[in-house]
Amino acid sequence: MGRASDRRQVTRIDLGGPSTVRRQDTLAAEEPLEIRVGHRVGHRPPLAVTMRTPGDELDLALGFLLTEGVITAPRDIHTAQLCAGSGEANTYNVVDVVLADHVPPPAAGTERNFYTTSSCGVCGKASIDAIRTRSPHDVAADPVTVDARTLTLLPDRLRAAQRTFERTGGLHAAGLFTPSGELVTIREDVGRHNAVDKLIGAQLQAGRLPLAGHVLLVSGRASFELTQKAWMAGISVMAAVSAPSTLAVDLAAEAGMTLVGFLRGQTMNVYAGPHRVTT
Amino acid sequence: MGRASDRRQVTRIDLGGPSTVRRQDTLAAEEPLEIRVGHRVGHRPPLAVTMRTPGDELDLALGFLLTEGVITAPRDIHTAQLCAGSGEANTYNVVDVVLADHVPPPAAGTERNFYTTSSCGVCGKASIDAIRTRSPHDVAADPVTVDARTLTLLPDRLRAAQRTFERTGGLHAAGLFTPSGELVTIREDVGRHNAVDKLIGAQLQAGRLPLAGHVLLVSGRASFELTQKAWMAGISVMAAVSAPSTLAVDLAAEAGMTLVGFLRGQTMNVYAGPHRVTT
Repeated sequence: MGRASDRRQVTRIDLGGPSTVRRQDTLAAEEPLEIRVGHRVGHRPPLAVTMRTPGDELDLALGFLLTEGVITAPRDIHTAQLCAGSGEANTYNVVDVVLADHVPPPAAGTERNFYTTSSCGVCGKASIDAIRTRSPHDVAADPVTVDARTLTLLPDRLRAAQRTFERTGGLHAAGLFTPSGELVTIREDVGRHNAVDKLIGAQLQAGRLPLAGHVLLVSGRASFELTQKAWMAGISVMAAVSAPSTLAVDLAAEAGMTLVGFLRGQTMNVYAGPHRVTT
Repeated sequence: MGRASDRRQVTRIDLGGPSTVRRQDTLAAEEPLEIRVGHRVGHRPPLAVTMRTPGDELDLALGFLLTEGVITAPRDIHTAQLCAGSGEANTYNVVDVVLADHVPPPAAGTERNFYTTSSCGVCGKASIDAIRTRSPHDVAADPVTVDARTLTLLPDRLRAAQRTFERTGGLHAAGLFTPSGELVTIREDVGRHNAVDKLIGAQLQAGRLPLAGHVLLVSGRASFELTQKAWMAGISVMAAVSAPSTLAVDLAAEAGMTLVGFLRGQTMNVYAGPHRVTT
């Protein structure tokens, strides 16, 4: 049993079965992760606290910083480490990131609070603009294509690779595949955005960004947030097992990404960039 | 077609069917909502921007403020209104909340960034403490009980009441039920936390808080965040169709709440407070 899951006592009721029983059940773990960011000299304040599944903390922190536009490449990081405090049993809940000297510090409250003044008349538009981090990658130019038949194989391959899901039934997964359907890497989390950040952070550290020429598969729905994270990592093909939102579709179209939804059995819906899906 | 969903062109591929077709598909809408909070005099800065399904904006804003501990009762609100700007087509994406004079302004960055200094050794624990908003309600004292047979009926009743889901396949729902299984109210959103905030905000405005003596059903998993929101509203019984996380179970046990997970068919798991579930 890793830190990604833990056991709790549960009362199991089956009205169609013999009787109520007490037993142990395995659950997905959930803990807060605080991400501190700054330079070598001076204070490094917490930038964000996210509820997440323990494991892959550095991947999560660096993926978050990349998809929020704070960093763009491994050279932007001086060091990143788990903050092991003294006298505390739990030392996995803080990541301390030291930015390279050339990287400007993030604006306070990058994650949710983006600005502190605006005129009312333009605020709706201004807040949409503010949550759109600018991607340095021209994913529209990615010439990759993927066969629809290959896409239909990916959800089963993702599920087969999910280590924790079978025990807990509670985790989202993000998987990166080659166009021929080979799994490159997978990450899991109680939060779908965290699973994607972990995956992107791992690839960032391996020096593999941008992720052109790959397919990102997410186990749930495709939101604006996930689409934006994929764009920030240079991913041009994203597929989701469930539905996308309107804004996810609009952002994918604007970026020149291919967005596939409802990828189930032999069927799928292509909401943007259908030229990359061959049949 | 309301603002909660919208149509987009889609390429439908069915490898087992006749051919690829272009058609219109209905998707769950997703837009940012900015919540501004302050007093009558002075600046009211944005407190949070959340991606959400349009509709029930005031419910969402007030529910968010209640579950974050900024307000506790209707008298804490002076006014709350949609901020209709001039010259903008979209005027539904900002809610302007004026607090009553006796209410202290929220700390900056209530949603995610909770403090700006701490010593490393206690930071893991400090951040857990910081994300726990204190509930004024003693839900442990709620004498309500609910029959397991009644609980098994609730998921179908929630689905039957979901207006948008059938068309989009993409929305989470939160439903409030009486102990005898009658639906009191339902709210939907692309974000599960928003669905719960909308529901709680509506009940707050109706003067019905605390919500002791009710059952809250959520369509997905039970996270720490949802459990805390239920506690803040005085809800003592929460049920989820899917899995809870460890921290959700631990918080429910600490609060004296009843937490039911995997409520499917004739079966369910009771993770905390089994004394309220009768068989």
